[in-house]
Amino acid sequence: METESVNQEKKSSLSPRLWEWLKTFSESLMAKVLEFGRKIKKTGQDDPRRVIHSLKVGFALTLVSLFYYFQPLYESFGVSAMWAVMTVVVVFEFSVGATLGKGLNRGLATLLAGALGVGAHHLASLSGNTGEPILLGLFVFLQATTSTFIRFFPKIKARYDYGLLIFILTFSLISVSGFRDDEILKLAQKRLSTIILGASACMVITIFVCPVWAGEDLHNLIANNLEKLGNFLEAFEAEYFKASKDGDSIDNNSFLEGYRSVLNSKASEESLANFARWEPGHGRFQFRHPWKQYLKIGTLSRQCAYRIEALNGHLNADAQVSPEILSIIQEACRKMCLESSKALKELALAVKTMTKPSVADTHIANSKAATKNLKSLLQSSLWEEADLLAVIPAATVASLLIDVVDCAENIADSVNELASVANFKSVDSTVSPEKSKLQQSDTADLDPKTDSPHVVITVCESTLALTENGIVHPVSLPGQHNQV
Amino acid sequence: METESVNQEKKSSLSPRLWEWLKTFSESLMAKVLEFGRKIKKTGQDDPRRVIHSLKVGFALTLVSLFYYFQPLYESFGVSAMWAVMTVVVVFEFSVGATLGKGLNRGLATLLAGALGVGAHHLASLSGNTGEPILLGLFVFLQATTSTFIRFFPKIKARYDYGLLIFILTFSLISVSGFRDDEILKLAQKRLSTIILGASACMVITIFVCPVWAGEDLHNLIANNLEKLGNFLEAFEAEYFKASKDGDSIDNNSFLEGYRSVLNSKASEESLANFARWEPGHGRFQFRHPWKQYLKIGTLSRQCAYRIEALNGHLNADAQVSPEILSIIQEACRKMCLESSKALKELALAVKTMTKPSVADTHIANSKAATKNLKSLLQSSLWEEADLLAVIPAATVASLLIDVVDCAENIADSVNELASVANFKSVDSTVSPEKSKLQQSDTADLDPKTDSPHVVITVCESTLALTENGIVHPVSLPGQHNQV
Repeated sequence: METESVNQEKKSSLSPRLWEWLKTFSESLMAKVLEFGRKIKKTGQDDPRRVIHSLKVGFALTLVSLFYYFQPLYESFGVSAMWAVMTVVVVFEFSVGATLGKGLNRGLATLLAGALGVGAHHLASLSGNTGEPILLGLFVFLQATTSTFIRFFPKIKARYDYGLLIFILTFSLISVSGFRDDEILKLAQKRLSTIILGASACMVITIFVCPVWAGEDLHNLIANNLEKLGNFLEAFEAEYFKASKDGDSIDNNSFLEGYRSVLNSKASEESLANFARWEPGHGRFQFRHPWKQYLKIGTLSRQCAYRIEALNGHLNADAQVSPEILSIIQEACRKMCLESSKALKELALAVKTMTKPSVADTHIANSKAATKNLKSLLQSSLWEEADLLAVIPAATVASLLIDVVDCAENIADSVNELASVANFKSVDSTVSPEKSKLQQSDTADLDPKTDSPHVVITVCESTLALTENGIVHPVSLPGQHNQV
Repeated sequence: METESVNQEKKSSLSPRLWEWLKTFSESLMAKVLEFGRKIKKTGQDDPRRVIHSLKVGFALTLVSLFYYFQPLYESFGVSAMWAVMTVVVVFEFSVGATLGKGLNRGLATLLAGALGVGAHHLASLSGNTGEPILLGLFVFLQATTSTFIRFFPKIKARYDYGLLIFILTFSLISVSGFRDDEILKLAQKRLSTIILGASACMVITIFVCPVWAGEDLHNLIANNLEKLGNFLEAFEAEYFKASKDGDSIDNNSFLEGYRSVLNSKASEESLANFARWEPGHGRFQFRHPWKQYLKIGTLSRQCAYRIEALNGHLNADAQVSPEILSIIQEACRKMCLESSKALKELALAVKTMTKPSVADTHIANSKAATKNLKSLLQSSLWEEADLLAVIPAATVASLLIDVVDCAENIADSVNELASVANFKSVDSTVSPEKSKLQQSDTADLDPKTDSPHVVITVCESTLALTENGIVHPVSLPGQHNQV
């Protein structure tokens, strides 16, 4: 009786503690569940195609599982039907290109390794009971070593890495398991047919049910990166010059931060280009779309982004630039910013809509003209009494902007190259590329020594507008700018 | 007879052509084979560990193939022994961390999915002949969809992507194949044990035969990147200032190009850090070595590299800088270059040897002092008659160098943090970190308005040397510099 009451006491003293512990535990659990739910929602909202992809994988896997379910199918394939399930799980990737690449790699590698495995098995069986295992072991060792080494070659790694993995796997399985199983040919044939079956299921579903094209993703990534650079320059102009003029800074943060993702886009661009090469023609893209040219534009975009990173440092630096100095170079620098921003955005739009960039060259020419203007300003005598330490930040910004304009020009050239290689359609018949090139050389030949910051650009046959500064420049075609 | 002679004529007219074709074919084939041989040699020479890795894979695979060979082993495992071969092929990666990560992922995922699969199978079998396949299909669909979606979470993708893949695979195979096979538990147990067997073979071989540690690779990558930045600054000083002074340019190209690989090192750093987390303590690294701090240093190195990319542009630009202007800022700029170069190299060496950086802070302080010096120079009256356009390139270089010095300071802070978190040993008892901090604040408090470019730095208790400029700075400790 005594022990019972002691036990009860213990229980009553324990239970509040237990309750408390349970309460805090359940609360933290709830918080974690809610946090996880929020993460799920965010992951899905960031890219709704992820949800669809998950459903597609579930569907494909359930479909292939039918092989086990329907008696007649099961009887013809037997345990080998397992390979179909396996193939679906490993081959089904997010984009069509990745899935096709893996599927083709797997199919071809299985075929080749199967044939070689059968051959190796036959060769080994000729050498008698003692020699057979030694020879088989030697074959496995040699092919595994060679294939593993070949996987280190960068070009092969990019496209055929998975194929080589499957080659090693199949060769080892076939040649070694053949040592036990005399039905080796039947096994190889069964394995191949189930793999083809699984891979085809993946390919059909990935191509025909809400396809995610790696090529299109690369295309959009490149266009968006160009747009981000353009957005930065526009926001930089607003922030750097307006802020130092009247202290009124607009919230441009998202535009000012956007370029950061461009800095590290190399890896994703390269993998997308690798996947895109496997994809058949789709939508606006033909089978042999010049994906390599996209990588070239990507590299130039990154070079531009490096300059922009240096520019961005000057936004956050302690404002040491005196308004007087700024007011002198302001006009030309703002024009450089805005014109190259317009050019980059126009190029982004051109890539997005797959049309020949029509007015980008004009904007580039304008920014080049502004550059010359700036240089002539800097040579003028306005500076003599200026304190050099106060000039340096402004001079650096100016110099970086000159670099950015150069980068933008290179990007424009490379987009024009893409437009001609990929046969982008031209939308604007009034300004043909030849004419806009003429305009460029016209403006480029302007006297760089002129002291006036006003540059007059003659744009043949296109709408002109007179700005408050007396600068004539082409009006953006409706629907081409600021809607990118 | 006539037809025969015609045939012979045809043969004689064909055979030269055929011979020629065969000749050119065999020649181009030989050229390709030679080219391929050269590639193989280069791939092996670039990193000899690749050859060893290939041999290790071959060895592991041959070892596991013995399961098929030895009758007793084969009889206990049967066809399941195949899973061991498969595991070796898929799990054996280049570095220990990647192999351990994949092996543990595969083992744990198989265990978990096996248990759930058996559970699902049991639950489905309770619902009768009609309900069973429907329920199984539903289970497969649900888990495949959920797991595929979870693979999109960045953190999970980085560490458990392969585990989730294997989870989907095993769950589907077990629950569906169980539908046919009543020996489901036996199957699950056999599969698990062969996988554990294959994975252990991989792990033992990867750890004990010439191990390649991802952590060590990350460690070296970070140190080498710092060294590359330091090398660039040294070469830049030689190239930019000497070249413009006496036109004598040394072949520093490899030093000047080295930094480029730093720009795009993010992806490899992150994957190495992910692998390193799986690795047990090895050599100088403990199990929970602060790999994340390496990523922080890597990010700062890249930021420094972006500035250097902008600097590099000025090396190749048309030399517009007049020697007079250059001669004024030269002294301070060269000091900034050399001192931050020394600091970066000292930091690289400190990381490499895992010792506390002893004199890096002094170098940083020196370069900060040179920066102040430069600023005061720029405020002086030497400039009034200078043409601003001629000043701009020099001013930009100066401004970028100021940024680089800031970056180097951040890197030094972050390496110091690493040194204290990872308990780097201190080699130099005469200059303790506290003292070098004191020195730093001493020099940092120097009057920035001083006109003299000569900065006197008091280094307590360490060897001092008097340079030709009358600048006192600490002598590099023997074996610490230029040997990195």
